Amino acid sequence: MIKHTVRLLLFACIATPVFAQSPDASAIRQIFDTELSQGKSYAALEYLTTRIGARLSGSPGAAAGVEWSRHEMENFADSVWLQPVMVPHWIRGQQEQARVLNSKRQGTIEMNVCALGMSVGTGPEGVTGQVVEVRSFEELKQLGEKRIKGKIVFFNRPMDVKQINTFAAYGGAVEQRALGPSEAAKYGAVGVIVRSMGINQEDYPHTGSLRYALNIPKIPAIAISTRHAALLSTLLQTEKDLQFYFETHCETLPDAPSFNVIGEIKGSQYPNEIIVVGGHLDSWDLAQGAHDDGTGCVQSMEVMRLMKMIGYKPKRTIRAVMFMNEENGLRGGLEYARQAALKQEKHIAAIESDDGGFTPRGFTMNAQEGPKARIKSWKPLFAPYGLTDFEEEGAGADIGPLEPQGVTTLGFLPDSQRYFDYHHTREDTFDKVSKRELELGAAAMTALVYLIDQHGLN
Amino acid sequence: MIKHTVRLLLFACIATPVFAQSPDASAIRQIFDTELSQGKSYAALEYLTTRIGARLSGSPGAAAGVEWSRHEMENFADSVWLQPVMVPHWIRGQQEQARVLNSKRQGTIEMNVCALGMSVGTGPEGVTGQVVEVRSFEELKQLGEKRIKGKIVFFNRPMDVKQINTFAAYGGAVEQRALGPSEAAKYGAVGVIVRSMGINQEDYPHTGSLRYALNIPKIPAIAISTRHAALLSTLLQTEKDLQFYFETHCETLPDAPSFNVIGEIKGSQYPNEIIVVGGHLDSWDLAQGAHDDGTGCVQSMEVMRLMKMIGYKPKRTIRAVMFMNEENGLRGGLEYARQAALKQEKHIAAIESDDGGFTPRGFTMNAQEGPKARIKSWKPLFAPYGLTDFEEEGAGADIGPLEPQGVTTLGFLPDSQRYFDYHHTREDTFDKVSKRELELGAAAMTALVYLIDQHGLN
Ligand SMILES: [Zn+2]
Ligand SMILES: [Zn+2]
Repeated sequence: MIKHTVRLLLFACIATPVFAQSPDASAIRQIFDTELSQGKSYAALEYLTTRIGARLSGSPGAAAGVEWSRHEMENFADSVWLQPVMVPHWIRGQQEQARVLNSKRQGTIEMNVCALGMSVGTGPEGVTGQVVEVRSFEELKQLGEKRIKGKIVFFNRPMDVKQINTFAAYGGAVEQRALGPSEAAKYGAVGVIVRSMGINQEDYPHTGSLRYALNIPKIPAIAISTRHAALLSTLLQTEKDLQFYFETHCETLPDAPSFNVIGEIKGSQYPNEIIVVGGHLDSWDLAQGAHDDGTGCVQSMEVMRLMKMIGYKPKRTIRAVMFMNEENGLRGGLEYARQAALKQEKHIAAIESDDGGFTPRGFTMNAQEGPKARIKSWKPLFAPYGLTDFEEEGAGADIGPLEPQGVTTLGFLPDSQRYFDYHHTREDTFDKVSKRELELGAAAMTALVYLIDQHGLN
Repeated sequence: MIKHTVRLLLFACIATPVFAQSPDASAIRQIFDTELSQGKSYAALEYLTTRIGARLSGSPGAAAGVEWSRHEMENFADSVWLQPVMVPHWIRGQQEQARVLNSKRQGTIEMNVCALGMSVGTGPEGVTGQVVEVRSFEELKQLGEKRIKGKIVFFNRPMDVKQINTFAAYGGAVEQRALGPSEAAKYGAVGVIVRSMGINQEDYPHTGSLRYALNIPKIPAIAISTRHAALLSTLLQTEKDLQFYFETHCETLPDAPSFNVIGEIKGSQYPNEIIVVGGHLDSWDLAQGAHDDGTGCVQSMEVMRLMKMIGYKPKRTIRAVMFMNEENGLRGGLEYARQAALKQEKHIAAIESDDGGFTPRGFTMNAQEGPKARIKSWKPLFAPYGLTDFEEEGAGADIGPLEPQGVTTLGFLPDSQRYFDYHHTREDTFDKVSKRELELGAAAMTALVYLIDQHGLN
């Protein structure tokens, strides 16, 4: 494209402040200008993802992430401290293997799989069995122990591509991964294969946590790439007696010591009123944890850094929290809320960024009517930056445990279209993050914290 | 992220049609559902970009693009024809070279450059000269012939990163590339270096057309990568007498025959009222022309294909036009409008997609009050799909020539944050396009054409 004359003239007008701006509008303009021209979020993300890399709870990478974020926040926070928390310590071990053993048409076929997080391993003997494909727990129940016992259950309900918001599609499928293994074990299954939580046809699997139910045998479970899920399903249509083999070496070690990392700028007028902004520092082990959730971490840090850069002294206390263990335990979020209650801290708001570092569309919230109306009254201040969606409920997993304390919680809401191309896979790497999209999100979060700091929520 | 319980429940409600939908809302839902689950736009784009590749006017790639799109549209159009048009035939020739020759600190430094489109070449002898850096035509004028004659002018005004819409940033800088060479030649410059029209620090240059003014000597011009622009500027601060050498082998051959490719579905009630949807088939030569403008082409084709897929018979005539030569001449757009006038065709609307295949945000338009109000009254129908911005003026370059005929023109408006990472560079490749983002755009364009077809604009 070369000619957009009229549009460009229009833009020029919008960009020039020909009318007097409110102090809030001016401050927000300064926040965006500073981040887009001198922001450090992208450089921070590059370090966290390419120098440190994967940060599964209990791993050396997670420990390095803790140390790095402590150092990083000392550049701009009044104080930084580590909040100890014991975390689950699951390790993947040796590379997984999986294959169809006896296809009459194709012989042995290697399959792209990975163990689900928190799964027990099969050990070197692996698991072999016939495959029973189902699309729902209801279908599983109808098949019952007679048809399931001794078999491998294959949960193959796809994410619904027709959902415009991909998180809705995820929400409609993820129970297969989270609860499927125990559901299958109820009927005597010996293993579980789950279609990856991906939207497209892909060659790589998506990991993610399962949750074993109490008092049900723990059976090993793997995710299979969407492309191989389709292939397996096709084979099963004509070859019901296929034998499937998989071998995983994952195991859960004793809980390990780790930390939430907390940076703070003390409020000048209301130091006891705390505004939290955060992301989770841990990630899955298959890649660099870029969109999940390196971007949320560096955006949260950037809120404090930007305040320093523009010389803004908050009235209330601002905390950036790098939560540990969102992916397979939520221990960091639970411990942060427990300590807040113990110390009788007054949190007035908590904002999490954990839906990827894409172009901002708005914020979600779990809030009472008063705070909700206050926040929505700020919509015109966000509109020039493309944030228009303030309607959805919800917030982040790590700040959920603060809600029973009456804290207004919010979630950063970016465009959702690409998130599940990367989520929990080898593809979640630094190069998938757009510098400008990341920066716009960091600035938007800073603008929201600024407004809450200036005006409160009551 | 694992837990979004509340949000997911909400989404589920939104997704379920618990209330009766209007016929328009139902049709649009069907359009999106069909594209997201069975769309062919991504497969078409893969073919066009990875099998055919670069499609500069007059090149074999452009000819292959013409043939392919003719065949492709025969799958779903009532008729397909080629509209002949003579196009400029510029070729890059042998790889460009550029270097700083005599830096005291660093010796010879190779620079990443490419010839600007339509530039004359230097030939094998190259151009050598001192470099004069300027940021504006005003600065150039003040230096005047005395300081410019015999030198190489380096236009180094960056795109303004603070503009939220990157097209505004482009609009504020692109005159340097389009008009800079002739402006510099007025004062006797022997060559021009233009900072690439990119926002980030990058190692690769961005090409794009210059436009030589009449009766001014044509001097050779190159784009330099943003990173090397910064380096060159830094060197010049202490070494004013740097000698810069560059060599380009581009040339303009005689005009070549080419074509617009037009597919049509005849209207059942008002066959003489035409709705055009289009993109440009030509691209720069450095990559595959994915976002510029393979996406616009396949989205435009998809409008007709989707109508067939859902069994929709338009009342008005729908045309998908693959315009030729947007990048360096606009001959296709001009010829299409000329023929429309000659044949006294009645175009009621034309829509172009040429801002990349990213998540849709809305539509721009150049329209009278009546049609504008009609189109804006449809905003609630687009909101569920994330399209909320219908305020900007503007449309596409190729459909601009239809405007004097009173045609309402519209532009597909996607998110703009990543466009200038790829625009006119080696990076504009298929892998940079998100399948879902592309499909959402194709569906949105189809929905708009459907509404115009159903209700007209008057
Ligand atoms: Zn274009
Ligand atoms: Zn996450």
